[in-house]
Amino acid sequence: MNNKFIRTVEKYNMLQNGDSVIVALSGGADSVALLDTFNSIKEKYNLALYAVHVNHGLRGEESQRDENFCKSLCEKYGIKLFVRHENVAELAKKNKISEELCGRNVRYTVFEELSKELSAKVATAHTASDNAETLLFNITRGASLGGVSAIPPVRGYIIRPLIECTRAEIEQYCSEKNLEYVTDSTNLTDDYTRNKIRHNVIPALKEINPAFENSALRLSENAREISDYLSDMTDKAISESKCNYGYDCKVLLSNHNAIIKNAVSVLCKRCADFSAEQRHIELIIDIMKNGGAVNLTEKYSAVSKQGILRFVFSNEENQLEEIKLCKNTEFEFCGKIYRVKKDNSDKENKNSVNADFLNKNAVFRTRQSNDLFTYPRRKITKPLRKVMNEMKIPSEQREKSVVLAVDNVILWCEGVGVSAQGTAYNSDNALKIDVSFSDKDK
Amino acid sequence: MNNKFIRTVEKYNMLQNGDSVIVALSGGADSVALLDTFNSIKEKYNLALYAVHVNHGLRGEESQRDENFCKSLCEKYGIKLFVRHENVAELAKKNKISEELCGRNVRYTVFEELSKELSAKVATAHTASDNAETLLFNITRGASLGGVSAIPPVRGYIIRPLIECTRAEIEQYCSEKNLEYVTDSTNLTDDYTRNKIRHNVIPALKEINPAFENSALRLSENAREISDYLSDMTDKAISESKCNYGYDCKVLLSNHNAIIKNAVSVLCKRCADFSAEQRHIELIIDIMKNGGAVNLTEKYSAVSKQGILRFVFSNEENQLEEIKLCKNTEFEFCGKIYRVKKDNSDKENKNSVNADFLNKNAVFRTRQSNDLFTYPRRKITKPLRKVMNEMKIPSEQREKSVVLAVDNVILWCEGVGVSAQGTAYNSDNALKIDVSFSDKDK
Repeated sequence: MNNKFIRTVEKYNMLQNGDSVIVALSGGADSVALLDTFNSIKEKYNLALYAVHVNHGLRGEESQRDENFCKSLCEKYGIKLFVRHENVAELAKKNKISEELCGRNVRYTVFEELSKELSAKVATAHTASDNAETLLFNITRGASLGGVSAIPPVRGYIIRPLIECTRAEIEQYCSEKNLEYVTDSTNLTDDYTRNKIRHNVIPALKEINPAFENSALRLSENAREISDYLSDMTDKAISESKCNYGYDCKVLLSNHNAIIKNAVSVLCKRCADFSAEQRHIELIIDIMKNGGAVNLTEKYSAVSKQGILRFVFSNEENQLEEIKLCKNTEFEFCGKIYRVKKDNSDKENKNSVNADFLNKNAVFRTRQSNDLFTYPRRKITKPLRKVMNEMKIPSEQREKSVVLAVDNVILWCEGVGVSAQGTAYNSDNALKIDVSFSDKDK
Repeated sequence: MNNKFIRTVEKYNMLQNGDSVIVALSGGADSVALLDTFNSIKEKYNLALYAVHVNHGLRGEESQRDENFCKSLCEKYGIKLFVRHENVAELAKKNKISEELCGRNVRYTVFEELSKELSAKVATAHTASDNAETLLFNITRGASLGGVSAIPPVRGYIIRPLIECTRAEIEQYCSEKNLEYVTDSTNLTDDYTRNKIRHNVIPALKEINPAFENSALRLSENAREISDYLSDMTDKAISESKCNYGYDCKVLLSNHNAIIKNAVSVLCKRCADFSAEQRHIELIIDIMKNGGAVNLTEKYSAVSKQGILRFVFSNEENQLEEIKLCKNTEFEFCGKIYRVKKDNSDKENKNSVNADFLNKNAVFRTRQSNDLFTYPRRKITKPLRKVMNEMKIPSEQREKSVVLAVDNVILWCEGVGVSAQGTAYNSDNALKIDVSFSDKDK
């Protein structure tokens, strides 16, 4: 096992000389073996070694027993142990998620905090057997290539040096080195799905191929590498198709099917926080070819019009109540945040308006049919409708464009810019109107 | 089931109006349902419908029963049935392969012959359940992405319109339409691995997700699409790195890891008929970076030298016995075939030599240390060694380059071309020396 540990550490470049490492310690065989191995290479790599035990409080006395076990084990090794208590049962109930998922979230939150605090990597004791279980679990529940990748050996600050060792190898290591460990009594009962896979499916597959865990590991590695490549190529395709108001369908559709599908899935997540299934992806590709719209969530639709794919906020309340222009006006509308700030830049900015309008009757609102816009340089006045038309602003966008106006005189219009009337004389009397998406990544 | 059949046919564009289709008929539920469905859409698609039954002769009377059943079934439908008998047991023994694999080979050979004879597609009755079994089978035995693709809905002349239907749906269809079918008694016993998966693993996974077969199908589809993309990009990378004597390591290594690995695997297959495992691929990538050689088979090695990756014939007999230049000289050496032909082209050809040397003392051999080469235009004479050096011919290649010489005067040298002495006056007295690889694809 020790050799595999070292090989994995080197293969994935997991450790640098002088690293700080926190071992995630449950007290079970895997994490005890992990701690022992780290302890044995501590000097070779000049490591600062810590451990962390998260007590989920789910198993009463047994939870306490495990915590105590971890404490005395770390004392024996002379390794500083951090202990965290969380009431996972209560938290899971509150967040309406399974205790298993909640426990996982809690652990990784603790890991992240501690990792930042100590500038350390966190080593978890996941094994090739865990990977094989996760692989089958994901496939059964309906995974695509990403799910086949199963458990990555390295993810950010997380390292998993036991990922190439099987559970059997670890138990043998513990027995050879006389390492004591605790056994989680719920392991055999609590999670029906995972235990079904562990106790029924995997033994059957190991009868066919005793090295099944290795096969699963190689497959996950292969899938991860390909996913990674696919992700690079998808990002490239997305950025090539990005245009003013969305994504150019023709450009995106010129890619290979595998890339188109992946790009649509990525865009759904990125632009609408929506995890698209195969059928959504097919529907969206269909509208990219033929035009139309697909409802994704209560909030968002995918719309394809004039050859552009957009993710639009499908809130029915398209009317923005009038909001006065003040020094620190800030409001949210249709998934975007509008902020008024002092403009400190010297550059002329199409989103900067004259500060003289502050605290006067200038208001933010959506457009009205009699709105008039005067081009700032040409000084020609036209109905705003015509201006938007000339600028090819998509029709859904027009309904949701915010304007700053005094009566029907437009000072500024989202996506169009500042008018002759709204223009600031110089940078000293300029207010910048900042528009940003309220969702991450948008 | 019928709807899924039609949807699959349309999704994969399986049928054109007026197609000829041969249904592969075992007599089991799947193939009986397939035949019945094809019969019901025969007119809609204007199909010429046939069936084929391959009797493997493995189950004595039961084999005969199945054949008779298929005969009377096809009579009932008025469909012409082709019956083929093969002694699979004997053939498997002779070829030292399993009866299962041998049976498969025999069936597909029959399908291919009949498909050509009738200019017809062959429809096999593979189901979503078969796909799920194959998927798990491949994963267990150690597949990469290609194995996850499992059973393709279309492969050349083969179409599989039931691939989206589960076995349960097909049995229901047979029962609803009162279709009789035979049951293969060995199905429950003969192939240990597949039956283990069918009877132990899949039922357990279906307890977790009753739509497991659909999950498997979607995953296979996803993997197939990505494999296809990967294959396109790999071909591109290979052709970009192709250079005179092999593949430019620097160019190949500039690709993403997923592409490099796939390219090495493809090159091993294409250039050395070798199915590389992960460890071979890693070794070859290592020599691409640092130089060196990897033995692949008894015949072939991968060699990386001067930044070029080559697959070289590693036969120890590097000495070619002298072979006289005659009208139809043909010989094999180090994996290549050398043929002398009348040159009918008018173009000057660097591999065409003067026919006056026919039946004189000109011989094919490998090079000798005192060989001299005279450049055909510049008329400068140099040791062949120096000429090869100037042309940057890799050292392993030099030992295996065939020359045509009179004493130590080179008339022609492989990879270098014809010398001043060997040049033909005109196309009428030219002999072309044709060099081709003796293995397919090389």
